[in-house]
Amino acid sequence: MAIIVQKYGGSSVADTEKIMAVARRVIHTVQDGFQVVVVVSAQGKTTDGLIKQARSISKNAPKREMDMLLATGEQVSIALLAMAIDSLGQKVISLTGPQGGIMTDTQHTKARIREVDGARINTELAQGKVVIVAGFQGMTNTNDITTLGRGGSDTTAVAVAAALNAEVCEIFTDVDGVYSADPRLVSEARKLDEVDYGEMLELASLGAMILQPRAVEVASVYGVPIRVRSSFSNESGTMIKEVNVVEREISVTGVASDENCAKITLVGIPTDVSVLHNVFSSLAAENVNVDMIVQAGTATPTADLTFTVTREELDTALDIIAKIQGDQDWGVICDENVAKVSIVGAGMMTNPGVAARMFEALNEESIPVFVVSTSEIKVSCLVPRPRYQDAVKACHRKFELGTVN
Amino acid sequence: MAIIVQKYGGSSVADTEKIMAVARRVIHTVQDGFQVVVVVSAQGKTTDGLIKQARSISKNAPKREMDMLLATGEQVSIALLAMAIDSLGQKVISLTGPQGGIMTDTQHTKARIREVDGARINTELAQGKVVIVAGFQGMTNTNDITTLGRGGSDTTAVAVAAALNAEVCEIFTDVDGVYSADPRLVSEARKLDEVDYGEMLELASLGAMILQPRAVEVASVYGVPIRVRSSFSNESGTMIKEVNVVEREISVTGVASDENCAKITLVGIPTDVSVLHNVFSSLAAENVNVDMIVQAGTATPTADLTFTVTREELDTALDIIAKIQGDQDWGVICDENVAKVSIVGAGMMTNPGVAARMFEALNEESIPVFVVSTSEIKVSCLVPRPRYQDAVKACHRKFELGTVN
Repeated sequence: MAIIVQKYGGSSVADTEKIMAVARRVIHTVQDGFQVVVVVSAQGKTTDGLIKQARSISKNAPKREMDMLLATGEQVSIALLAMAIDSLGQKVISLTGPQGGIMTDTQHTKARIREVDGARINTELAQGKVVIVAGFQGMTNTNDITTLGRGGSDTTAVAVAAALNAEVCEIFTDVDGVYSADPRLVSEARKLDEVDYGEMLELASLGAMILQPRAVEVASVYGVPIRVRSSFSNESGTMIKEVNVVEREISVTGVASDENCAKITLVGIPTDVSVLHNVFSSLAAENVNVDMIVQAGTATPTADLTFTVTREELDTALDIIAKIQGDQDWGVICDENVAKVSIVGAGMMTNPGVAARMFEALNEESIPVFVVSTSEIKVSCLVPRPRYQDAVKACHRKFELGTVN
Repeated sequence: MAIIVQKYGGSSVADTEKIMAVARRVIHTVQDGFQVVVVVSAQGKTTDGLIKQARSISKNAPKREMDMLLATGEQVSIALLAMAIDSLGQKVISLTGPQGGIMTDTQHTKARIREVDGARINTELAQGKVVIVAGFQGMTNTNDITTLGRGGSDTTAVAVAAALNAEVCEIFTDVDGVYSADPRLVSEARKLDEVDYGEMLELASLGAMILQPRAVEVASVYGVPIRVRSSFSNESGTMIKEVNVVEREISVTGVASDENCAKITLVGIPTDVSVLHNVFSSLAAENVNVDMIVQAGTATPTADLTFTVTREELDTALDIIAKIQGDQDWGVICDENVAKVSIVGAGMMTNPGVAARMFEALNEESIPVFVVSTSEIKVSCLVPRPRYQDAVKACHRKFELGTVN
């Protein structure tokens, strides 16, 4: 019998009524002839509440104990959803991340899944049960509870789907699919029926937070098809899978935007790589994610290095840099008032001039560009935050994304 | 280095301020030169809140899922307490019941501890850490989470103390020790410095809910000394241990009372044992605790059988009995308006006439007695609930328990 993994986020299980709705949808899927594994997040604002409680005791709580605390949120959800499904007459069992065989590394609060041991899940499925697995959490090989960081439930769902060789991993969310741009910013934004893994990875990384980038990575590596769909409708949503891009004529699939950016520039650093190495290895050691690294003028003895971090991590990043700086002869400037706008498309690499068209669009609106970075399937521009919505609209219009090609 | 196990109840960790107070007391014990293991319950009304949430979804939730849900309460407490102790500079680690090696049977919501595997706790203690273990919960040998039922944290603490060969198991509570009677009922009630395991077991079973009876049982079997003391003072409390009763002159140690009783009488049941066996095995199968079983007139072909249950379990018990009754020719009557008053004392068995003095005390106050049951160290009488406080006072006065002997 084919297996479907369904993931429901915190807003989908926020109260009793919503939990019952999820239970009915799960049972409907069983009635369609599937074995169902459900991955679920903590209810609504539970995690935020727990973090607040922790902060009232310690501003600097050990990360292992944060994980011990936060893991309770999903444990409550799985138990309540199991009760709901049971009350409708369907056999069901809930499993914590550790019980579900979600094995991770030891990096507390930001752990990565190393392996999913599907033995227990398979045993329970074989007994005709719906299996509910707590998202966001796992276990180290020393039996300690870890969490995967915000949005980690998506990754749990995809990793479980891969381990069980599931037919599809359905991610239920409060939007009905992946759009060519954020519909709150661009009224002509169009729902996409199909997106390639690579494109989704860029879209996800670039702020379209429908799916956790790591989840897309794992799906891509194991070839797990993901369907993003709405908790509140039966629309088919957007399928994320391997798309044959060679024959594609569309060069740009969507426009992504991310307000959660801050720019840091190290002014006049020596161009030998020791400072570069020192800065980025120190930031990595503290788990600060760095994006859009640009350095200009490496032929001269000094250069300016610019990169972006999330706004929450700006202070941590500046502290780390200040320690490295010491009494060295270079400066640090930062700008919180920026946003990132990106065009994404698997067809881009075979279509020259895409970046040029993007700059043209921004130029027509007189939007300055601070930093540019590109990959094979995306071009990102850092723009002033007050102008980012205009920038998204301009790109969406320029590439005619509101029209079905 | 000697090990002390300290158990703190839900009211002791109800808010941030109280958690910090517990943290300071734990560190004080470390500074006194002990290795400390802390067992902690869920915060304040957490468990009631979770039960309410479950009931909003299902009136008849699977017990395994109730355990999955309820176990989160203690997990939150251990994490927060660990953060508090860490913030004061003491090395510390929290362990769930499963991580702490608390192995139980599979009877969900009322599991019994089978074994404590102290390996992980010992490893952490050896590294100079305070170890916090979640009370009330454990794990079956199939890796499922169980809870021990209300008050189970006491049992966890004593079982851990036994496994680690701890010097003493300290139970912190909101009273400063064990009294000769409930001080809210009898103003002359006296705090006892020392109580024998057997006496405490009777006192605990009889409604002096300072300690879970099962915890006292385990302590008695393994010879773990228990100290009951107040969370809010440094008083030495009451020591519960093996007391040499042969030389004791005091026959009665205390008066216990229990309002949470209901009386069921099966009228005119056949005296062959089949009905008896049927009734009590059916009640046991549904985990209904039965107390004070009395049958009169076994020489005749029919007899009246009376026993008590807790008021919460009365409806369940009556349902079970109704099923057995079917169309058989006997009746059922019940009385919820009763209470149990007991005198307890290890010296009682060597002092004849103790029961007679108790009846004399009740008779002087014209308090009727519905049912009497006795053991080697206690005499219990079922009296009308409106008179139970008078009954406790009369017994306390009759046995001169307000005076140090």
